Amino acid sequence: MVRDPLREGRLGTKRPTGVVEFLSSMKADRMIAEADILVDIAHLLMLRRQGIVDGKTAETLLPALLDLYDEGIPEEAFDDRFEDIHAGIEAYLIERAGPDIGGRLHIGRSRNDEVATCIRIRLRTLLLEQMEALLQLRRVILDMAAEHRESIMPGFTHLQHAQPTTLAHHLLAYEQAFGRDFSRLQGSLERVNRCPLGAAALASTGYPIDREYTSEILGFSAPLQNTMDAVSARDDMLEAIAISAISMSTVSRLAEELVLWSTGFVQFATLDDAYSSTSSIMPQKKNPDVAEIMRAKAGTVSGALMSALSIMKGLPLSYDRDLQELTPHLWTAVLETKRAYMLLAEMLATTTFHTERMAEEAGKGFSTATELADIIVREFGISFRTAHGIVGRAVRKGSLSLETVEEAAEEMASLSLRDLGLSEKMIEEALDPRYSIGVRNVPGGPAPSAVDTHREMRGTALDADGDWWEHFEADLDRAITRLVLAARELVP
Amino acid sequence: MVRDPLREGRLGTKRPTGVVEFLSSMKADRMIAEADILVDIAHLLMLRRQGIVDGKTAETLLPALLDLYDEGIPEEAFDDRFEDIHAGIEAYLIERAGPDIGGRLHIGRSRNDEVATCIRIRLRTLLLEQMEALLQLRRVILDMAAEHRESIMPGFTHLQHAQPTTLAHHLLAYEQAFGRDFSRLQGSLERVNRCPLGAAALASTGYPIDREYTSEILGFSAPLQNTMDAVSARDDMLEAIAISAISMSTVSRLAEELVLWSTGFVQFATLDDAYSSTSSIMPQKKNPDVAEIMRAKAGTVSGALMSALSIMKGLPLSYDRDLQELTPHLWTAVLETKRAYMLLAEMLATTTFHTERMAEEAGKGFSTATELADIIVREFGISFRTAHGIVGRAVRKGSLSLETVEEAAEEMASLSLRDLGLSEKMIEEALDPRYSIGVRNVPGGPAPSAVDTHREMRGTALDADGDWWEHFEADLDRAITRLVLAARELVP
Amino acid sequence: MVRDPLREGRLGTKRPTGVVEFLSSMKADRMIAEADILVDIAHLLMLRRQGIVDGKTAETLLPALLDLYDEGIPEEAFDDRFEDIHAGIEAYLIERAGPDIGGRLHIGRSRNDEVATCIRIRLRTLLLEQMEALLQLRRVILDMAAEHRESIMPGFTHLQHAQPTTLAHHLLAYEQAFGRDFSRLQGSLERVNRCPLGAAALASTGYPIDREYTSEILGFSAPLQNTMDAVSARDDMLEAIAISAISMSTVSRLAEELVLWSTGFVQFATLDDAYSSTSSIMPQKKNPDVAEIMRAKAGTVSGALMSALSIMKGLPLSYDRDLQELTPHLWTAVLETKRAYMLLAEMLATTTFHTERMAEEAGKGFSTATELADIIVREFGISFRTAHGIVGRAVRKGSLSLETVEEAAEEMASLSLRDLGLSEKMIEEALDPRYSIGVRNVPGGPAPSAVDTHREMRGTALDADGDWWEHFEADLDRAITRLVLAARELVP
Amino acid sequence: MVRDPLREGRLGTKRPTGVVEFLSSMKADRMIAEADILVDIAHLLMLRRQGIVDGKTAETLLPALLDLYDEGIPEEAFDDRFEDIHAGIEAYLIERAGPDIGGRLHIGRSRNDEVATCIRIRLRTLLLEQMEALLQLRRVILDMAAEHRESIMPGFTHLQHAQPTTLAHHLLAYEQAFGRDFSRLQGSLERVNRCPLGAAALASTGYPIDREYTSEILGFSAPLQNTMDAVSARDDMLEAIAISAISMSTVSRLAEELVLWSTGFVQFATLDDAYSSTSSIMPQKKNPDVAEIMRAKAGTVSGALMSALSIMKGLPLSYDRDLQELTPHLWTAVLETKRAYMLLAEMLATTTFHTERMAEEAGKGFSTATELADIIVREFGISFRTAHGIVGRAVRKGSLSLETVEEAAEEMASLSLRDLGLSEKMIEEALDPRYSIGVRNVPGGPAPSAVDTHREMRGTALDADGDWWEHFEADLDRAITRLVLAARELVP
Repeated sequence: MVRDPLREGRLGTKRPTGVVEFLSSMKADRMIAEADILVDIAHLLMLRRQGIVDGKTAETLLPALLDLYDEGIPEEAFDDRFEDIHAGIEAYLIERAGPDIGGRLHIGRSRNDEVATCIRIRLRTLLLEQMEALLQLRRVILDMAAEHRESIMPGFTHLQHAQPTTLAHHLLAYEQAFGRDFSRLQGSLERVNRCPLGAAALASTGYPIDREYTSEILGFSAPLQNTMDAVSARDDMLEAIAISAISMSTVSRLAEELVLWSTGFVQFATLDDAYSSTSSIMPQKKNPDVAEIMRAKAGTVSGALMSALSIMKGLPLSYDRDLQELTPHLWTAVLETKRAYMLLAEMLATTTFHTERMAEEAGKGFSTATELADIIVREFGISFRTAHGIVGRAVRKGSLSLETVEEAAEEMASLSLRDLGLSEKMIEEALDPRYSIGVRNVPGGPAPSAVDTHREMRGTALDADGDWWEHFEADLDRAITRLVLAARELVP
Repeated sequence: MVRDPLREGRLGTKRPTGVVEFLSSMKADRMIAEADILVDIAHLLMLRRQGIVDGKTAETLLPALLDLYDEGIPEEAFDDRFEDIHAGIEAYLIERAGPDIGGRLHIGRSRNDEVATCIRIRLRTLLLEQMEALLQLRRVILDMAAEHRESIMPGFTHLQHAQPTTLAHHLLAYEQAFGRDFSRLQGSLERVNRCPLGAAALASTGYPIDREYTSEILGFSAPLQNTMDAVSARDDMLEAIAISAISMSTVSRLAEELVLWSTGFVQFATLDDAYSSTSSIMPQKKNPDVAEIMRAKAGTVSGALMSALSIMKGLPLSYDRDLQELTPHLWTAVLETKRAYMLLAEMLATTTFHTERMAEEAGKGFSTATELADIIVREFGISFRTAHGIVGRAVRKGSLSLETVEEAAEEMASLSLRDLGLSEKMIEEALDPRYSIGVRNVPGGPAPSAVDTHREMRGTALDADGDWWEHFEADLDRAITRLVLAARELVP
Repeated sequence: MVRDPLREGRLGTKRPTGVVEFLSSMKADRMIAEADILVDIAHLLMLRRQGIVDGKTAETLLPALLDLYDEGIPEEAFDDRFEDIHAGIEAYLIERAGPDIGGRLHIGRSRNDEVATCIRIRLRTLLLEQMEALLQLRRVILDMAAEHRESIMPGFTHLQHAQPTTLAHHLLAYEQAFGRDFSRLQGSLERVNRCPLGAAALASTGYPIDREYTSEILGFSAPLQNTMDAVSARDDMLEAIAISAISMSTVSRLAEELVLWSTGFVQFATLDDAYSSTSSIMPQKKNPDVAEIMRAKAGTVSGALMSALSIMKGLPLSYDRDLQELTPHLWTAVLETKRAYMLLAEMLATTTFHTERMAEEAGKGFSTATELADIIVREFGISFRTAHGIVGRAVRKGSLSLETVEEAAEEMASLSLRDLGLSEKMIEEALDPRYSIGVRNVPGGPAPSAVDTHREMRGTALDADGDWWEHFEADLDRAITRLVLAARELVP
Repeated sequence: MVRDPLREGRLGTKRPTGVVEFLSSMKADRMIAEADILVDIAHLLMLRRQGIVDGKTAETLLPALLDLYDEGIPEEAFDDRFEDIHAGIEAYLIERAGPDIGGRLHIGRSRNDEVATCIRIRLRTLLLEQMEALLQLRRVILDMAAEHRESIMPGFTHLQHAQPTTLAHHLLAYEQAFGRDFSRLQGSLERVNRCPLGAAALASTGYPIDREYTSEILGFSAPLQNTMDAVSARDDMLEAIAISAISMSTVSRLAEELVLWSTGFVQFATLDDAYSSTSSIMPQKKNPDVAEIMRAKAGTVSGALMSALSIMKGLPLSYDRDLQELTPHLWTAVLETKRAYMLLAEMLATTTFHTERMAEEAGKGFSTATELADIIVREFGISFRTAHGIVGRAVRKGSLSLETVEEAAEEMASLSLRDLGLSEKMIEEALDPRYSIGVRNVPGGPAPSAVDTHREMRGTALDADGDWWEHFEADLDRAITRLVLAARELVP
């Protein structure tokens, strides 16, 4: 039997099952097991390079680690008798290389810096994956916007028909918001990509380790200098969770709109069957389940953030075991958000939009009344508030016609707009959604030309974000490749 | 291959893997799978009793259901191709009884009321388990209090030495708080124990079902009347999570104290090895890991509550798929809290308290100065504020002696306490922690006699709570036994 | 100038303004200022009764306290130079009665038990007010349900038209949920109504105080026994916040529905002008602002709960200053929820429901298809799943007619329903929403007769809740009246 | 009487008081009132420049606006009869310039873009103030670190004595964390500093406005392009709240440590009287109230984040009134965090650290045992795990001496370390905290030389951050000055 080498000296090895399970991070550790192999390799290369371990140690342990890297970690290392995967891997190495050499890998480090490093290695990969999914989502939206630059629809405020806009304009609002999420993720990734290794338990080590070297060969931008901070801090993890929660709040808004748009009332959109489900008792239903669960996931991710913030509150330095309880909330947040991006992109891309139905609603609810008020201001020099009042009163009369507007003008301001030149034709034109959209060609507005310009800007921004992503990703790839190569070279 | 019978009619059966996984509640459904069998049996008994299905249907399906009940649900029913366990079980029944008879179990109900009923069945069991663990925790604390009625220790405010108290008094504060948690759980359990079955999708059914009957044979106190509420509401689940979160906040306070008390500074307590862990690099460490994770779990449960509240916010009636995302947070909250109670009870019971060390600290920090001020008020008729001021000023002088007190009295109030009769002996007595504790014999106070009275009261309360629990539990047990018996009787 | 008597002895009186403001609870203390007078009176009556203060002290202080009670606390007691209102009132008493007598009121108590008592006195009043508003809201809903028992409307699942129901049935779902909130508030109120007074700083006092007496004359049901718990615990406050948060989640669902129902798409309801607002630029808009803010308030109250839970996490016993930061979140939660109940009751009562429009939608979206499937099962002995499949397939063909159903039956099950007796008339009847509602007359179902029965049950429950409330309220009133009378009698 | 001009046309002007109060944002609007004047001026300059209003309008309104800017907004504009400050200011302008001209300011904009712009203007100022306070806090910590580079203290893990470190090393952990907060705030500020003005209600306007111009003269970096996003999005506000919550979690950790360090047990630090308070009944207490409330504020800010996230969840585009409820949570988060930084900087700077007491504790608890194990590895080629095991077993024997270590080595590994050369003197040296600290001179470690290097790096980083801040602040200042100047020039 492989024993847990960590508990041998100081404490009895017996422990109630409930406690073992309570303390175990094994389930969450599957997320960082691969990262742990990389950290082991990097640490060993450094120990050898600094002369802290001899050639024999390196030549014995590196093949074992490379085997784990190449063939995966054997299931037995995840066994419940180990408190965590670090203990599981160490037991494997000890079994293979003997306790003397197997134990040397832990020289000059501690589980505190090891786990902090593993979390950052895994998190940066996940952030990259999340960003990749986000880039794809933004691409899908931009493509849809190109297609729907003339798809007129009502714009809403307070969920009331407010002013006409286009589907392109509406969708681009989301792309712009997701672009900010991307820039937040960039900042997060840069902060995450710092190396805690070498901090040991909290105060570094008396061994002549080289933190710059391990940081570099693991692809980090720099060591996380102060060693107490390196093992105690989780603010970068809180940030990653917070960005996910913020972005999921935007995702939930779009999900809500997809739910609304596919109701029998609105009928703007039909979701693809793959993203719907039926009811066991109502055979005709086509329910937007994916969008609903996506909306709910925003709650799950917010709660993960709350858990994490609450866990960190008031913890004295340096490492406390409470930190272990934070990590699963981190994975939940980042993975759920990535998944939401992927499903949302596909769900959007496969949704059928009913553009005639949208256009039909675009002019309803007096949603172009603003335009009429504006025209009255522009053409007849009436004050904005007065024009607003007149049109509002006319609406109350039930319709916007020359007659009702005239009556309202008389009542509100004792004047005749007809005398000033207002005609039925002017009113009709003002009330045509296409007219209303067409004149709104200021930057960021719904006029197709404004949308085109904006879409181009966003395309450029997306390309730049994509380039940034590719460089970062390639650099990381190269670093890991080099690391493994360096290890292989040391194997005789 | 067993097919998902729910998707056959209306929607295509193909679906991207990511979507299947996203929609699946299968993982969480393991929690309610057994409850589902009970619901199936009860529903079928009712259908037969009302003549809605014929004898053959009952005789064919009941043996299959009883097999599932007796031998457990086969792993294949949890297969990923089913969206949830209800579909998995139905597929099993259809395979065994054919589509015609197998499909009849769904007459007069829907997954909406079915799942709501399963959740309540499972939740009431879990609440009972949680309460059982809580009763045990309270028992442990009462027992410890009996042992430590004379174990003097400092009482703290602001974590400063404030006034002497005893460990019994300190521990009983927690028992009293946990008693309130129990009473909250009672209220919750009573609200949870209402039966949604028969509500169907939202508007009940046109079949002549008997909701009173199914409610009763499933051990519920009554049907949850309004059927829209029955399928849409999750406030009773929010309440269970909230009670867990509130109770975990008390748990976290005790966990924090155990962490503090086992530091090198305080040394009031030594946790048993089973509840500690060692460090990989610091062999001498004995870390209170269980207490730390317990403290962190309070954050996890708070976050679960936040997720659940956020998920429910603004959902229109009746059932929305978002509700599915709430349930795992419910299980997390209730299970983690139950587990924390169990571990806390064991951890407390196995902790060694260092009573001499506690006594040594009890009189430090001028923590009996209040008593001296009180004596000055009582004996010499000085106003409370003045006496407080005098003693405070004397403390500032660095010690409480006749000399410093006299000086302070002169400076603050131009009077001589010595002339009034204050002696060194009176001061010494006033500053003795045992004296201070002894005079505090008002109800709920730390004097051993007051603690004895209070402990007795609490013992009586605990017994009453235990009786309540046993009755509730026995009633439920009886109901389920009767239900299964009734089913067996119908099998030829 | 009135000085802060608390800081005189021990600490310098100078302090940076920022700190004073940071520590001050004065703003929140306005909520408990009146309660503080009652506590002062009760404590003084007890001190006199026990002979702890002499007649002169009582005769000097009681008139001052009764003045504060009768005429209100002078604004100067709320001045920023006092850290809290307790210091402000004490300064007032000292100014009026001299430092000697003025200071005696603090004998045998501390700000810790004083503030805990004040919070509970204020909270029980607020809970009663909240419950009163909730009773009124439930009354309004029951009245509306009586009016709308035949107002047919579509019932929704996943916001899709699912099955027909009535507005009465829909509204009663909310009344039933609010009834549970009431029962939660009852439990909370009973737990809140325990008296911490006499706990002093944490360990009670050496003075022979009578805790039973002060508890009783302040209208509490009993003292909160253990004195450490009495000053440290805030779980009863967390519970009150949690109940508010849970109830606000239900409120937010109804608010969401009001927003949806008053959209241009749905047009089921028109909110009264008093509960709407207009837009500055779109004169025709009538926005459901009150409903929207009400929905948002659910978020505010959830956040208050999260703040409070996070504040309490891991606080060692007994009193920590952190507790002060919790109280404003308590008031926010309880007051916002009470206000939401009041506004919701009025908003609902003044809303115009467009019953023709609702009826028009009731049969749309194949929402009675379930009924047709049920009839096929009942009449022709087809299995539920098969009937479900047939109707589902027919829906896919675009309509439910004898022809499409027949085709579907052929394709799905190779049978002819026409041959079995299905007629166009049977289909028509099955698809009539009124028929569908009428047959759903199981307890809690939407059939008008079932709704009548349910409404009566709920009326009885509401009356019982109202009686409970009145008794509790009257008892409390009587207690306070007696307390003040007892004080007046001691004034010469 | 000044009337609310917004409600005149469409809706009745009467409204229950409760509703008015419920809808009013007036209290929170005090935060943005000044920003609103700037927005009014900028908008008017642009309208004039584009020829949308005539010279007379500009010449009439600009003096009124400049008066408001120079002399402050009159209290009457905050009157409760206005729903918000925008209405209050407009009423003022109408009263001064008449309804015709006064109403023209609203041409081409809406309250939706106006309020979004005001929030961003105010927020960027507050973020700058928050950053300024953070820079100051970091400066204080760096200065303290310079002073305490040799102040030996125990480093803790799990709050157990772990390894010796220095106060400088410990404090620098916080500075490094606060440096990350600063970089997060930079990213936030850059995202916040985008201009929504011109988005109008949601779809911009038909007037030929110049969004680039208003953006520039208001000191923004660019317009927030898509106009729906511009009025609907609050993710940048969520980010600011989240950063505050994350940073407050770090603040709460330091506050916790200050509470712990000033206990009677630890006595590492004495807080200045200004940051402490006394007890009403325990005259000797010196309580760390400021640190406690600071710790609690982390809960308040987390709750504000939760409120805000919950409010945003699932809101359909574009503007919903719910957004109004978010803003107060934003101010709470940012202001409380800024205040915490300021008080923390002052509190730290005035704290007395008891360095002898710290040093006394530094070697306790076998906290240098790691070093001994390391020496055994290095000097005698024993494997790390074996050495760890030997020292752990020796610790269990109660002391670390040549004798106990030798016994342990015999028992664990059947070898004699004495024979290998281990001497009492080597053990003593290894166990001296100063030795242990001295050898830990890797980058970021506690050795004074390593601390010096690190402190220099951090000083450089702080200077760079300070420069960035000053440039940003100066640019903003210049922009506002230019704006006001441009307005004055147009006044005849």
